Amino acid sequence: MARLVMKFGGTSVADIARIRNVAQHVKREVDAGHEVAVVVSAMSGTTNQLVAWARETAPLHDAREYDTIVATGEQVTVGLLAIELQRIGIPARSWLGWQIPIRTDNAHGAARIQEINGDEIVRRFGEGQVAVIAGFQGLGPDNRITTLGRGGSDTSAVAIAAAIKADRCDIYTDVDGVYTTDPRVVAKARKLDKISYEEMLEMASLGAKVLQTRSVELAMVYRVRLQVRSSFDAPDAPQGNGPEATGPGTLVCDEEEIVEQQVVSGIAYSKDEAKVTLVKVEDKPGVAARVFGPLADNSLNVDMIIQNLSDDGKSTDITFTVPQAELARAEDVIRKAQAEIGCKEVRTDTNVVKVSIIGIGMRSHTGVAKTMFKTLADKGINILAITTSEIKVSVLIASEYTELAVRALHTAYGLDGE
Amino acid sequence: MARLVMKFGGTSVADIARIRNVAQHVKREVDAGHEVAVVVSAMSGTTNQLVAWARETAPLHDAREYDTIVATGEQVTVGLLAIELQRIGIPARSWLGWQIPIRTDNAHGAARIQEINGDEIVRRFGEGQVAVIAGFQGLGPDNRITTLGRGGSDTSAVAIAAAIKADRCDIYTDVDGVYTTDPRVVAKARKLDKISYEEMLEMASLGAKVLQTRSVELAMVYRVRLQVRSSFDAPDAPQGNGPEATGPGTLVCDEEEIVEQQVVSGIAYSKDEAKVTLVKVEDKPGVAARVFGPLADNSLNVDMIIQNLSDDGKSTDITFTVPQAELARAEDVIRKAQAEIGCKEVRTDTNVVKVSIIGIGMRSHTGVAKTMFKTLADKGINILAITTSEIKVSVLIASEYTELAVRALHTAYGLDGE
Repeated sequence: MARLVMKFGGTSVADIARIRNVAQHVKREVDAGHEVAVVVSAMSGTTNQLVAWARETAPLHDAREYDTIVATGEQVTVGLLAIELQRIGIPARSWLGWQIPIRTDNAHGAARIQEINGDEIVRRFGEGQVAVIAGFQGLGPDNRITTLGRGGSDTSAVAIAAAIKADRCDIYTDVDGVYTTDPRVVAKARKLDKISYEEMLEMASLGAKVLQTRSVELAMVYRVRLQVRSSFDAPDAPQGNGPEATGPGTLVCDEEEIVEQQVVSGIAYSKDEAKVTLVKVEDKPGVAARVFGPLADNSLNVDMIIQNLSDDGKSTDITFTVPQAELARAEDVIRKAQAEIGCKEVRTDTNVVKVSIIGIGMRSHTGVAKTMFKTLADKGINILAITTSEIKVSVLIASEYTELAVRALHTAYGLDGE
Repeated sequence: MARLVMKFGGTSVADIARIRNVAQHVKREVDAGHEVAVVVSAMSGTTNQLVAWARETAPLHDAREYDTIVATGEQVTVGLLAIELQRIGIPARSWLGWQIPIRTDNAHGAARIQEINGDEIVRRFGEGQVAVIAGFQGLGPDNRITTLGRGGSDTSAVAIAAAIKADRCDIYTDVDGVYTTDPRVVAKARKLDKISYEEMLEMASLGAKVLQTRSVELAMVYRVRLQVRSSFDAPDAPQGNGPEATGPGTLVCDEEEIVEQQVVSGIAYSKDEAKVTLVKVEDKPGVAARVFGPLADNSLNVDMIIQNLSDDGKSTDITFTVPQAELARAEDVIRKAQAEIGCKEVRTDTNVVKVSIIGIGMRSHTGVAKTMFKTLADKGINILAITTSEIKVSVLIASEYTELAVRALHTAYGLDGE
């Protein structure tokens, strides 16, 4: 017997037929003797409608009222799933964020979970009851409903798994696991049986959309074993997924659990990048502070930075990247500071992509980055910027080379499957 | 300065444009210096969709989960109205049943309010904040959401008005007040300026749909002055409605407040009646108990009862009425007991209507019922059954005479307007 958290997203509960399918997945685990808490999102489309109403009423609106409105999406789903579970003979009850409670801070719309009291849920496991929990929502210090922000249901699931000391947290989604890279780009992409928390975190931050970054962070901190799998599999397909087995999806776990380590586990790419270049900046002490100080003051996230000699040989060009959604704001900040910075021109470019190789094996292998640079050079791809960490190397390239670069790197690091 | 509760039903908040209109009504009262709590229903149509989902999932479902689902309708409306009020510069916040809390008993789907703590709402009046309260919902003893049953928002409004000691509770609806009878039937029906609680209670129970019976009961017990008015009036129309004035609608109040009493204040009719006749029942002691015992045991509400000699002159016919929705169940109960009762035949008829005259003046005037019977006789309308109370007389007649009877009585009691 194991204790499981099962999380289903919006497309998995999009209508009553899909909710019945989710109930069958739950039934399989209950029939296997497991204790189950299910975390669900709103029926897909519902949240968009609710957000649209709030925006129509007032484009700028009280985040507390917004949370009250959008939290209804999950409230409907938990009720319907509890009803369906009861219909097929499984004792179940719904739990809203404020009922457990899932205590969060006061950051309405993007709240962080602070404490979850799982005692009552665990007590009811003893009575054979399944807990159906509304994802994405909590209770703020002011006794009002908070939401964790888009995609927050993954985070809810992991936090609940930690609180009730679950043996595993299964994230059911519309793909059947974590791949070495995006299968839509590389036909030979392989599903990974296991991936370490650290790698998954980099993959999620660097563009792989299968899991929310925050949920992986939380899983890593609390050592919650996380399984990514498909809710579109037949619920009665062979499983072999006791708490020890890897199951049909991808297990995100401690690196110690992964026996055969690849040097590079995956290739990620993100098109959500924008490049800003300050042309011919006077090269004198303090110039970096004059550029990046105002950006930091405006809470703008600068990712990559390069500084090189201008073509006049006397001044420098400074290039940095920000998320595309923040480009307009970043450009605005820079133009306001342009006179003080003392640069000739500000150029922006959104036709760039960040391609990353990720693998904990890099820690103990040398020459990994070299292979990347050589592979790209062999294909005639120019590298615009580079950043590295202990377990990843990212390069910025022109976006037209995205597929070419990802495929070449996938082959170069021996990741191609059949 | 007065303290007001303003209640708006589903058609009054059907879309964002209508919600903006509601906010303007609220603004008018706030601008006049009043303290305001607004109670709202779900956007019309929303509740039906939620109920349909629950039924599609399982026709028989856990009432607690049902309540969790349908309570989201009001949760959305309070958020949107609070946002709109803030947009037009009025400090406002939403309150859900569990936040106030509005404590109810455990009868999910038809819960009764037990206690409301209005302290925090009143405290915030002092800060100039408008309370936007979700109607129809409360918090049960098990810490789960309860609903008061269809139309329960009127009851919420009156209970809140009692809790915060409001000077008046305004029920905004799609008609502009309480009429002497249904204006769709009688063109000369007049809007009443005032009506007593007792009369309104009879009107509501006997078929007038403008207010829920329970909300009137509650208003009577707590002496909450209730005003029925239209939300379709222009919000900036002349008002003259300080707490002392009667305002543009109909005031439901103590009879002492009503200076000029009519003998009959209104005519109500209800088509929701069904007649059951047991033909040729053996006339022996205990027969009534054998008929009505099983009906009571099955919680069936019997309204009118008549017993008369059968045409064979030896046995009796027993006739009674039940609400149409309960006819099938009543017939079933009677047919099962038919052998024991010892009757020849059971006949049912739904082509009947109950027409009632209502007026507290009846207490002190004689001959009121005689006028009713004579008026109907003059039109050739046969009376099938009669019930009376201190302030009403009801007769059962064939439904084809409904309009004729209501119009004739309206004239006979001097209620016709211009």
